[in-house]
Amino acid sequence: MRKLGESGEKKLLEWIVKRLGEADGALLPPGDDAVDFPFKGRLIISCDMLAEKTDIPAGMSLRSVGYKAITAATSDVAAKGGKPIAYLISLMLPPDMTEEAFEDLWRGFEEAAKLYGGKILGGDLNSGDQIVIDVTCVGRAEKIISRLGARPGDILAVTGEFGAQAAGLHALLNDIKNDPLVEKMIQSFERPVARVAEATALAESAAITSSIDSSDGLAESLYQLSDVNDVGFVIENPPVSEDAVRYAEKFGVDLFDLVFYGGEEYELVVTLKPKMLSDAVEAVRRAGGKLIVIGRVTEDKVIKVRWLGKEKLLERRGYEHFKP
Amino acid sequence: MRKLGESGEKKLLEWIVKRLGEADGALLPPGDDAVDFPFKGRLIISCDMLAEKTDIPAGMSLRSVGYKAITAATSDVAAKGGKPIAYLISLMLPPDMTEEAFEDLWRGFEEAAKLYGGKILGGDLNSGDQIVIDVTCVGRAEKIISRLGARPGDILAVTGEFGAQAAGLHALLNDIKNDPLVEKMIQSFERPVARVAEATALAESAAITSSIDSSDGLAESLYQLSDVNDVGFVIENPPVSEDAVRYAEKFGVDLFDLVFYGGEEYELVVTLKPKMLSDAVEAVRRAGGKLIVIGRVTEDKVIKVRWLGKEKLLERRGYEHFKP
Repeated sequence: MRKLGESGEKKLLEWIVKRLGEADGALLPPGDDAVDFPFKGRLIISCDMLAEKTDIPAGMSLRSVGYKAITAATSDVAAKGGKPIAYLISLMLPPDMTEEAFEDLWRGFEEAAKLYGGKILGGDLNSGDQIVIDVTCVGRAEKIISRLGARPGDILAVTGEFGAQAAGLHALLNDIKNDPLVEKMIQSFERPVARVAEATALAESAAITSSIDSSDGLAESLYQLSDVNDVGFVIENPPVSEDAVRYAEKFGVDLFDLVFYGGEEYELVVTLKPKMLSDAVEAVRRAGGKLIVIGRVTEDKVIKVRWLGKEKLLERRGYEHFKP
Repeated sequence: MRKLGESGEKKLLEWIVKRLGEADGALLPPGDDAVDFPFKGRLIISCDMLAEKTDIPAGMSLRSVGYKAITAATSDVAAKGGKPIAYLISLMLPPDMTEEAFEDLWRGFEEAAKLYGGKILGGDLNSGDQIVIDVTCVGRAEKIISRLGARPGDILAVTGEFGAQAAGLHALLNDIKNDPLVEKMIQSFERPVARVAEATALAESAAITSSIDSSDGLAESLYQLSDVNDVGFVIENPPVSEDAVRYAEKFGVDLFDLVFYGGEEYELVVTLKPKMLSDAVEAVRRAGGKLIVIGRVTEDKVIKVRWLGKEKLLERRGYEHFKP
């Protein structure tokens, strides 16, 4: 199989440019120095970088890597109430990457972009000693949901269960295979879904007071909401994935850690006005998702979890880059 | 000096978030998952990635690296007629980077963003084994200038001389110091200026038919214009920097290579309707820049240069990522 270093940048660029989308009303041709399109409304933009050595476990397909890179950037836009319009992708690729591997990666980008309704318009290409992907997601929002706004007494809710993604990562890292449950967990790690429809529905609802995405883990997301809003949380109903329960039992992994510290979920963590809760639940249901009430916002700036009949303090560990 | 791995991501993020700009009309607080602002008009967006191991010569200050990362993304937006509004910066940083080094890098971002009139609104932060910077520049354009549009008979022009930046890079790579000429070259390598005002003026002029930025070198830019427009060029008046002439003589470097293959310039390479040339020259002059006529567009799809009294064919070498 030919490697990128043999075929060269020009050929790779030609392949990419042919597959680029074109924004409605664009004047610049695909492959020009920049991308353009007319826009009126509220822009919402995020970028998310991932690197092979840090973020790609052995055994993960490049197609999944591409899918997740787009999903991660999309999730940030979604969590603020935005719908993706366009993606720009900056890449660092090793010269010994095969053309086939690159095409897999790109098809992962395309799969996710199609799912979320945005077009891949352009980007930048570089060579280096590992794969680095930075996705910029440009979206439109009718209504914005900030991190700021949670108040004591608000309801705390999430858009899905936690722990399955982390179990999938654990299985990949420990090379656990040939088990239908494990295959399902790996699938949920490799193909998480950013909650675009749910977030848009929530943004329209008068119930919502704050929102954050949970890609750094549920505990870390709660701590960030706690910090910025100067509030605490009591979690009476932890959103435990049933599959994670089974995985934890079968492979002797700590379930609490999977649920709160695993990360890799792209759920929304939101706070809601209690009187309008049913409105929000119904809005998300109509959007095809679900809203799980897990607790409430407290004045006391600590995070407590009801776990196996006991109340315990949720430590801050989360995921800190730079610290070993 | 404290290292990022000791102080941790949280502290670093706090430092960054305090320094982020706020877009007019933004609803999200700095440091939220995404950035937002209202916009009406034509958006123009580019991203540009650079990596320590590939793009940062030893001896280059991190402040200059930051400055150039913003300049590179800006130049692509400018070359299409856009003015920067906002920047998002995705970073991979090694844990052994000192806080001081990081602050230098960030001040370089700020220096350039201020120069070009855009605000640094957000980004993403990761740890890794080298510095990787991906800058997304979001701009506004009243009129767009595409790569497409050059026609045989058009005038070929650039916004500045070539060769000084490449000489500066040569000096850095060869550790040539303590020479006022060399200091000036290094300065022009470390602080090139993206031609925002010139490009905006040209975009408004009816004279312009196509435009590209020249960061991969003049020869490569000409080849890209040639490919996309199916035309050739005759360059009768190569835009040779006088400083590059002196440097080439003094240090025995090939002047032709410096001018055509050096890269690192952020000049515009444009084609213009001959009858309206004076209009374009005047528009750029009023914008504070200069437009140097270097040749013309030909039907014959080759690129010829008049050099030292002889006509020679310009080979395609440029800069190809992936190929050694």
